[in-house]
Amino acid sequence: MPPVRGVDMAIARAGFYKHERDDMLIMRFAEGTSCAGVFTRHGVGSAPVDWCQAQLKSTKGAGVRALAVNAGCANSFTGKAGARAAERVAAALAKAIGARKRQVMLASTGVIGVLLDDAKMTDVIPAAMEALHADAWSRAAGAIMTTDTFAKGATIRAQIDGVEVRISGIAKGSGMIAPNMATMLAFVATDAAIAPKVLQSLVDLYVVDTFNAVTVDGDRSTNDTLLVFATGQSGAPPITKTGDKRLDDFKRKLKAVLLELAQQLVRDGEGASKFVKISVTGAKSPASARKIARTIAESPLVKTAIAGEDANWGRIVMAVGRADEPVKREKIKVTFGDLTAAHDGAVASDYSEEAMSAYMKNAELEIGVDVGVGRGRATMWTCDLTKRYVEINGDYRS
Amino acid sequence: MPPVRGVDMAIARAGFYKHERDDMLIMRFAEGTSCAGVFTRHGVGSAPVDWCQAQLKSTKGAGVRALAVNAGCANSFTGKAGARAAERVAAALAKAIGARKRQVMLASTGVIGVLLDDAKMTDVIPAAMEALHADAWSRAAGAIMTTDTFAKGATIRAQIDGVEVRISGIAKGSGMIAPNMATMLAFVATDAAIAPKVLQSLVDLYVVDTFNAVTVDGDRSTNDTLLVFATGQSGAPPITKTGDKRLDDFKRKLKAVLLELAQQLVRDGEGASKFVKISVTGAKSPASARKIARTIAESPLVKTAIAGEDANWGRIVMAVGRADEPVKREKIKVTFGDLTAAHDGAVASDYSEEAMSAYMKNAELEIGVDVGVGRGRATMWTCDLTKRYVEINGDYRS
Repeated sequence: MPPVRGVDMAIARAGFYKHERDDMLIMRFAEGTSCAGVFTRHGVGSAPVDWCQAQLKSTKGAGVRALAVNAGCANSFTGKAGARAAERVAAALAKAIGARKRQVMLASTGVIGVLLDDAKMTDVIPAAMEALHADAWSRAAGAIMTTDTFAKGATIRAQIDGVEVRISGIAKGSGMIAPNMATMLAFVATDAAIAPKVLQSLVDLYVVDTFNAVTVDGDRSTNDTLLVFATGQSGAPPITKTGDKRLDDFKRKLKAVLLELAQQLVRDGEGASKFVKISVTGAKSPASARKIARTIAESPLVKTAIAGEDANWGRIVMAVGRADEPVKREKIKVTFGDLTAAHDGAVASDYSEEAMSAYMKNAELEIGVDVGVGRGRATMWTCDLTKRYVEINGDYRS
Repeated sequence: MPPVRGVDMAIARAGFYKHERDDMLIMRFAEGTSCAGVFTRHGVGSAPVDWCQAQLKSTKGAGVRALAVNAGCANSFTGKAGARAAERVAAALAKAIGARKRQVMLASTGVIGVLLDDAKMTDVIPAAMEALHADAWSRAAGAIMTTDTFAKGATIRAQIDGVEVRISGIAKGSGMIAPNMATMLAFVATDAAIAPKVLQSLVDLYVVDTFNAVTVDGDRSTNDTLLVFATGQSGAPPITKTGDKRLDDFKRKLKAVLLELAQQLVRDGEGASKFVKISVTGAKSPASARKIARTIAESPLVKTAIAGEDANWGRIVMAVGRADEPVKREKIKVTFGDLTAAHDGAVASDYSEEAMSAYMKNAELEIGVDVGVGRGRATMWTCDLTKRYVEINGDYRS
């Protein structure tokens, strides 16, 4: 992945793991960088998420200068001591780059309930300052991995008023965080010049159909974090209004990067053997369609059927009904790829078990459901539920 | 299980399965029997559920005379043809016992999307009439099984104004219905004389903490049905008011039978190796406590940890936060049996991995969570999520 102007990175080994590995990432941003964030809506949360939300509120996302990420300790459910540990990391990094601590963002992933040993991080900051480099995106993607089976990144070019800008991002999850849970972290940077309010409104809008449209097991982490930084170093004109036409290409590309990263999370879902796109149409509203799609995507009976390569449309219908959204029973249609399993509230007259079974052997599947009520539509991406998932999550300590 | 006065039963082989087995149950009730029902809130539903709801509305639950149940075909998602098939079964049974078809209740369990072959049932009704017998509860419990691994029943005595009455029930589920989904059916009868309105209000009340407080995988069937019949043949005085003090003992015993049947469903959960009681206290309201308990009970990460005998309290905290209910993070307490894993928002100071691991080896587990907000409490029963569950549900056709 090519550099993004205005972003330097350093990867370090803070020692959160017993074995030697990169487990810390520092990003330094040019002065005047805008930042937008979306965080877990988890009721318990974590110290780094609390920190970012408080600082973004105070700075309104303007002039963010750095990000520190560690893997191996989530610093969640650690009370006031955890908050103080997080603050010390931000203070040390701020001092090292000559900024204020409120200009530093934090993210952590790893075990819950263990207090962050902040000295591990502050000790390596001086050496990291010497190592800052623009061309380190791939190694950065590796440093934030936990049990991800591959590093996740996406990069794209966009045009703003004829000037080329770049959008690059890395993500981690939904691999298992030993021994607790999956955390999703994603960091995206662009050299476009976008006002913080505009950046935040774009991220809020696009997260609905990207990060919030993927699910592995429906469980939600205390630490989920998406941060988007705009350094303004491309020379493209600053954009201060969401409706600015010059932003059209950038918008599409930003959404594409977010979607690509989100989909990579699902492809690396624990034990996943299938990548499944679920499209719901004919719902009362987009929100209703999303709820139906999510209910299908998170149904254990649907997910195990997919793992078993079983075109079990009865379970899809079950999940549709369970969503408690308006549907017309006598109009429900269920498709697998181009094959129709059920329509008008009953099994398709030309239903072929053989054709269905052949289709289900594909590694990527598309399931379509029309509920016959209105025009609301939504798409969700998920993976199957395999014995390997149970193994990864159940046999961890045994 | 002993007879209940006013209830005769016949078990038949209608032929819904390829192999020879009981797959049909008829219950005949004395004149003047009250009936109360609770059904799936599934949006798609099924013909037998539609039928029962319509007849109970029309008769107000008074004078119900019979019940016909079949296993092997759910008659769900079968449109108008399915509704007509159900009606023909009710009509044939009504005629055979000299009643009206609206006095006949129906229940089906089995494959979704397959039209009920009602002739299979109506053909065996004449012979069944000859076989009606009061002492057939155990065989009845067997006839409604699908892939249940044991027949489920409960019986208890109660006193109404000094007169002994009996309450007996059978249930089936959450074994897998080949190849579609788990259906819960439960039928309870008593020889007490309870007005339909009173019976319905008791069932509506008790179902909350019994059948609605157990979960195997969160998936919901199109056919779930609970029917309670009161024949009035015990000689106990008729009860026409819910608040009647003479009903106190009966109420407790009715709830106990419902809870026992519900718990048997969980114990027979697909692939289950652990029976888990989840108690939430300190919530804002009972409803809030229930939602938190359900979120914990249905979390795949919690359920796989239990399968792995891992006292993973971090996942419990994760599930608590995910419930989107008011909690005080710095007050959360998590216990496993008598052992405290976390309190005051952090790991317990005397946390012992060894003691926890030993506790998790038990076949029955109790997980307690206090969220530190108020006085709302709720209990939910569930089972673990094992590789066997995935096997049963995923490898069915492969």
